[in-house]
Amino acid sequence: MKDYQIFELGDFVTQGGATIRDAKLAYKTFGTLNEAKDNVIVYPTWYSGQHYDNEWLVGEGMALDPEKYFIIIPNMLGNGLSSSPSNTPAPYDQARFPGTTLYDNVSAQHRLVTEVFGIEKIALVVGWSMGAQQTYQWGAQYPDMVERIAPFCGSAKTSVHNFVFLESVKAALTADVAFEHGWYEKPPTKGLRAMARVYAGWGFSQPFYRQELFRELGYSSLEDFLVAFWEGFFLERDANNLLAMLWTWQNGDISANPIYNGDFEKALGSITAKAIVMPGATDLYFPPEDNEYEVSNMPNAEFRPIPSVWGHFAGGPGLNPVDVTFIDDALKELLAS
Amino acid sequence: MKDYQIFELGDFVTQGGATIRDAKLAYKTFGTLNEAKDNVIVYPTWYSGQHYDNEWLVGEGMALDPEKYFIIIPNMLGNGLSSSPSNTPAPYDQARFPGTTLYDNVSAQHRLVTEVFGIEKIALVVGWSMGAQQTYQWGAQYPDMVERIAPFCGSAKTSVHNFVFLESVKAALTADVAFEHGWYEKPPTKGLRAMARVYAGWGFSQPFYRQELFRELGYSSLEDFLVAFWEGFFLERDANNLLAMLWTWQNGDISANPIYNGDFEKALGSITAKAIVMPGATDLYFPPEDNEYEVSNMPNAEFRPIPSVWGHFAGGPGLNPVDVTFIDDALKELLAS
Repeated sequence: MKDYQIFELGDFVTQGGATIRDAKLAYKTFGTLNEAKDNVIVYPTWYSGQHYDNEWLVGEGMALDPEKYFIIIPNMLGNGLSSSPSNTPAPYDQARFPGTTLYDNVSAQHRLVTEVFGIEKIALVVGWSMGAQQTYQWGAQYPDMVERIAPFCGSAKTSVHNFVFLESVKAALTADVAFEHGWYEKPPTKGLRAMARVYAGWGFSQPFYRQELFRELGYSSLEDFLVAFWEGFFLERDANNLLAMLWTWQNGDISANPIYNGDFEKALGSITAKAIVMPGATDLYFPPEDNEYEVSNMPNAEFRPIPSVWGHFAGGPGLNPVDVTFIDDALKELLAS
Repeated sequence: MKDYQIFELGDFVTQGGATIRDAKLAYKTFGTLNEAKDNVIVYPTWYSGQHYDNEWLVGEGMALDPEKYFIIIPNMLGNGLSSSPSNTPAPYDQARFPGTTLYDNVSAQHRLVTEVFGIEKIALVVGWSMGAQQTYQWGAQYPDMVERIAPFCGSAKTSVHNFVFLESVKAALTADVAFEHGWYEKPPTKGLRAMARVYAGWGFSQPFYRQELFRELGYSSLEDFLVAFWEGFFLERDANNLLAMLWTWQNGDISANPIYNGDFEKALGSITAKAIVMPGATDLYFPPEDNEYEVSNMPNAEFRPIPSVWGHFAGGPGLNPVDVTFIDDALKELLAS
């Protein structure tokens, strides 16, 4: 009894030239598409997240109010619900799942939005982290369709430092011999736990740890936070899925496609949507400086850092009520404009 | 034909209650101890470094001028030259090498300085990173002996976030099955390489990577930097030695000893030495904020960040001439006062 829908993409050809046969795009919707089809919000998922993990920002009285808006949460390719290493039949399964890009993801989402729902305008695209990257991608790939964007704690192009962080995650995961170059039958738990510990220092900021704010989340000690939050988080994920999404992230660039041919500033300049760009002020891998540069190249964008010590997790998934309110308020303001 | 000396510590009892029999403290000196014995500088080593790796700050015309000063570089326990997992005979070899603390290290160094050289006053203790931690430890453990300290890119107590960073390094290294719980016969190269990639994102800052300053160091691409600089660096080290020093680091706290019984502010307050404390402005694991707090609790200290985008490597090992000059100038000023 699944609580979401599958859009059959058919033979989906990736930017890299692979064909995922009978490709799937999993999605969930909230609210009702109105007659004018002008109440649409698209809200892509983040690294390792599924649509369930996006729901903290949806609710009555919030900006993303299903009473007013038709909210579509498309699951990113590789996340275990849409086509992924873990659910694609041989021969494109496991280690052979092809790299998919922001362009691939948003092309698939565009087909869903237009072919299934006949939507021509999107009031808002919004997302956290890799969801923010897809948000930027929507703005650059379909500028005439997207009226507003609100990417938070993410960038339009993965920075070199961010790439290095991802190398470290990958190295820790794949150092486990049980990973078997991706052909494991049992999960490489040691590698998943190592990856979790690597992620831990990056996900939250120095002041978050200095103030031991993990206690506010209900963890009894630092080690409890590392085991119960971090290791628990990644142990539930499939290693190849994590690496598939990591590939997407490392290759994240809204200009790496036939429309912009690598001209990043041109891609940014094409985003005519009204934008509020919200980095976490203490985010260690999507630092505000990269967004500041992006906003300076966008015609209709505002740079508005989230004044938070929660690092990357200022943006989600709804851990900290103060930051949730900050983001929700900005979305209300943007939707009202 | 070794170019350094060994001080025989005899049966060295650690804070934790282990006895390292026939313990060794390796050291190298530069310059000549004068008659008054008042020209002494102690310059401890850093994580994984040996005295060779400290020499960039020593030289004619520099603050640490062997023509004027008698400079002692003691090698940290665990670094492969002083007693370490790699050179201690069974049964305290490899995985059984005991944890050694800042207190243990500085106690051993104090014996060297007093028993071998009859020194009563030290003009300056100076060090980078874990060398800075030992520098703070000298100031708190022997306040009547130490006239000046200059810790750079290090803290008097390892912060919670820094501890998490070290957990990530350890998890990556030990995820390699070849590590064999420390009982390897061949080096766990996959783990050492994974550890190197984890370290890479932390060692240098986001702007360092944004500006691709690794090219200034002679690396032809990011991947070349990751392989040739980072993996090359750690592949030369012994895994158990790295973990021994990591243990020292994770337990770094100048008040965790019988003198201060965990009263950190009291330990800081006892450092009467004139101090210039120099964090790297963009250091990700020894961020300036921790030093700022420390300095506010020290009676005779100045907080002077190194205005650099080189992250932790603003402090060493001599990679960037501008930062070297900044540090050297501060040391000259401190020694002249």
